[in-house]
Amino acid sequence: MSDPRSTALKYSQDNRARTLEELKELVAIPSVSADPAFKPDIQRGAEWVVAKLTSLGFQNVQILDTGGHPMVYADLMAAGEGAPTMLIYGHYDVQPADPVELWDTPPFEGVQKGELLYGRGASDMKGQVVASIAAVEAALHAGSVPVNIKWMIEGEEETGSPSMADFIKKHAKLFAADFALNPDAGMLSATQPTITYGLRGMSYFELHVSGPALDLHSGFFGGTVRNPANELARVLGGMQDVDGRVTVPGFYDKVRELTEEERADFRRLPQNDAFYLEQTGAKSLWGESDFSAYERATARPTLDINGVLSGYTGEGPKTVLPAKAMAKFSCRLVPDQDPFEIEALVRKYIEDHIHPSVTWELKLLSDAIPSISERDSAAVQAMAKAQETVWGVKPIFRREGGSVPVVGHLQGQLGIESINVGSGLPDDQLHSPNEHLHLPTWEKEIDAFIHFIYNLGEG
Amino acid sequence: MSDPRSTALKYSQDNRARTLEELKELVAIPSVSADPAFKPDIQRGAEWVVAKLTSLGFQNVQILDTGGHPMVYADLMAAGEGAPTMLIYGHYDVQPADPVELWDTPPFEGVQKGELLYGRGASDMKGQVVASIAAVEAALHAGSVPVNIKWMIEGEEETGSPSMADFIKKHAKLFAADFALNPDAGMLSATQPTITYGLRGMSYFELHVSGPALDLHSGFFGGTVRNPANELARVLGGMQDVDGRVTVPGFYDKVRELTEEERADFRRLPQNDAFYLEQTGAKSLWGESDFSAYERATARPTLDINGVLSGYTGEGPKTVLPAKAMAKFSCRLVPDQDPFEIEALVRKYIEDHIHPSVTWELKLLSDAIPSISERDSAAVQAMAKAQETVWGVKPIFRREGGSVPVVGHLQGQLGIESINVGSGLPDDQLHSPNEHLHLPTWEKEIDAFIHFIYNLGEG
Repeated sequence: MSDPRSTALKYSQDNRARTLEELKELVAIPSVSADPAFKPDIQRGAEWVVAKLTSLGFQNVQILDTGGHPMVYADLMAAGEGAPTMLIYGHYDVQPADPVELWDTPPFEGVQKGELLYGRGASDMKGQVVASIAAVEAALHAGSVPVNIKWMIEGEEETGSPSMADFIKKHAKLFAADFALNPDAGMLSATQPTITYGLRGMSYFELHVSGPALDLHSGFFGGTVRNPANELARVLGGMQDVDGRVTVPGFYDKVRELTEEERADFRRLPQNDAFYLEQTGAKSLWGESDFSAYERATARPTLDINGVLSGYTGEGPKTVLPAKAMAKFSCRLVPDQDPFEIEALVRKYIEDHIHPSVTWELKLLSDAIPSISERDSAAVQAMAKAQETVWGVKPIFRREGGSVPVVGHLQGQLGIESINVGSGLPDDQLHSPNEHLHLPTWEKEIDAFIHFIYNLGEG
Repeated sequence: MSDPRSTALKYSQDNRARTLEELKELVAIPSVSADPAFKPDIQRGAEWVVAKLTSLGFQNVQILDTGGHPMVYADLMAAGEGAPTMLIYGHYDVQPADPVELWDTPPFEGVQKGELLYGRGASDMKGQVVASIAAVEAALHAGSVPVNIKWMIEGEEETGSPSMADFIKKHAKLFAADFALNPDAGMLSATQPTITYGLRGMSYFELHVSGPALDLHSGFFGGTVRNPANELARVLGGMQDVDGRVTVPGFYDKVRELTEEERADFRRLPQNDAFYLEQTGAKSLWGESDFSAYERATARPTLDINGVLSGYTGEGPKTVLPAKAMAKFSCRLVPDQDPFEIEALVRKYIEDHIHPSVTWELKLLSDAIPSISERDSAAVQAMAKAQETVWGVKPIFRREGGSVPVVGHLQGQLGIESINVGSGLPDDQLHSPNEHLHLPTWEKEIDAFIHFIYNLGEG
């Protein structure tokens, strides 16, 4: 007679091929949240999760109207009031696939090549959603789950979770939990389990600049009115110096300085400058010289243009003075910066610097609060032990440069800390063509989640 | 018995409706030179001109291979060696129609509404080509043409005539002439005939900046490598100050200062600042405060971004750090700036200012030499008299902000001065949606060209 932990691990192992097929099913749904054309597929993504959780016997399974894309909620409170309640977070939406022509396989088809599964969302984060469900399924099969479980699987993370701030505040009681599990944070390498204790936040902007009433002949009118593309370049180009320092006044005021202990930890991480050089394929690294590339990528704020468009961009020369110009740009934020304070500073910078002969509009497309979690909580320690059991080495504690808006909202509004883990690897090409998932690591993550559930019961 | 001049004028008048139909035929050929997709239509445009000139009895009618788009050449040297030889310049190619959705009529259909004919190229310059052919047709019908005539109708003016510099040099003998007639320069207003004695030149650039090997997740990598879109904005944005002064060192060294006489002439022109404000629809004017808007548009050099593209430009936020960024930008040049010297200065500026961690490529897509012509030559005076006869007022002499590269090449390489005229009006919306031609002015221009031909015989 075996204990529940072993039963669950064996069940999971025996069902691995089916679980992979389920992941391929979910990848095949092009649930792109940024583009309204994919709205029906967003709905299909939510329904796939509902069907799966319903089949496992979860209760209160429902698609909640967030005002934006739908969220799947479900719970199973069978462990009772004395047991801790874990909120498992996930998102079923994905980034757009473009530029589609750079993919070697169809982006919305899970294609296995050796140890890798290719497809948009395979790693970010459909693979992680399926892994967490698979672990819970195994524990339920084993008949003994020592924690109450709530699911919160949203559909707009890749657009910055614009509905989540209000939605979480409004449903504070529904989502109440002792801690949250967020498997959207990835790991350092396939052999190094990782717990992420800090995440960057974000303010994502869209700036529109308009000048003349219509596109003009640059010969007839060049020199008489401000060209909105020139003005956009001048203002945006001036927001950051050549060395990477953002020039917006007040931008760094709330930045929490790194402690010597943190910086010492970071120096032991394998993500040295050579790693970043190889991962990015850039000619050389760049940025604030007082900080390592890892520190710049995880614990320092940024300002990056994400997209810019104006005028004629086809082949050959067109001598047009464009009527308008548009840029998307975003600041990754670190504790204790606030996305709305940053919005106000950026808005004031533009007001102070842009020429009054153009008109402009700045929209905050998404916001995320940066977060920091306690390393020595019972739940974090349960995860650390689970990872050590599976990988044979202790996890590394690190910060991460990406943003999980819900983690910020849960912490800021409900007081719920998140355990940020996941099987995503740095070279998975998230958000890029040929995104893929490393399957052996993904399978270890499922086992680690099973151990984590039982470790919680022993805590 | 009437004189040839009167006969020609009457013939032209009697055939006006047919001439308008011919213009509509030519507008219906979408001979867009910037986009290779329209290459067959470029060929059709050239063939239309060939057929028309052949039908008039011109000799040596031929389509010349320029290396780029074809040029139509034809001549009729019947006036003999004692008579002057006039080279009539034109271009049958047009600007792209985009943004097509802003047109109220199909761009490649000549649609008459009241006194206006709408369509891409109706004014710039298919209308002018058809007008000059109609005038010559009328003179040939009258049986007495006192000048030898050569035609040079090219197909790549709207891409900056990239093949013309070499081509004109190579065929110096073929194009030899006493002067050139260039009807691509337009007029001040429907009631004010105009002779343009100065044209701006141009250096048109395309700049590509590349950073990481592929698009990156701005959360994972933001802060570690230079974002090529940020760097493009910073470098391009820094090339011009907020008041319109180009900051590229040496840029103004060769600029010929305006004389007090010229500036006094300009102050009498109707193109005051209010005119530019109304024409552009901008909130306010902008530019070097030492110069009027007219001076800035015609006698001062510029730097305008014509197009820029990088990263994600669809709906919603995409948190990408783009791998590359592209801009098209151009400098309008004035005497005695040289487009290749300006290219060298711009290249040096970029070399000196761009961060070494990005790679970049600067291409000169087109170049045009700025030009200035003598006001008191016999041919210019013949044109001035013709315009006064038709409009009842003396022409105004002015400079113009646009570029006609061939005018620069003819002057620089063959010593041929051009008489720059035309029936294009400032509000024809050249290069913009809803381009149109003012038909009553166009008809006057045909008459003026007939008078010009006979005035030359009296000179």
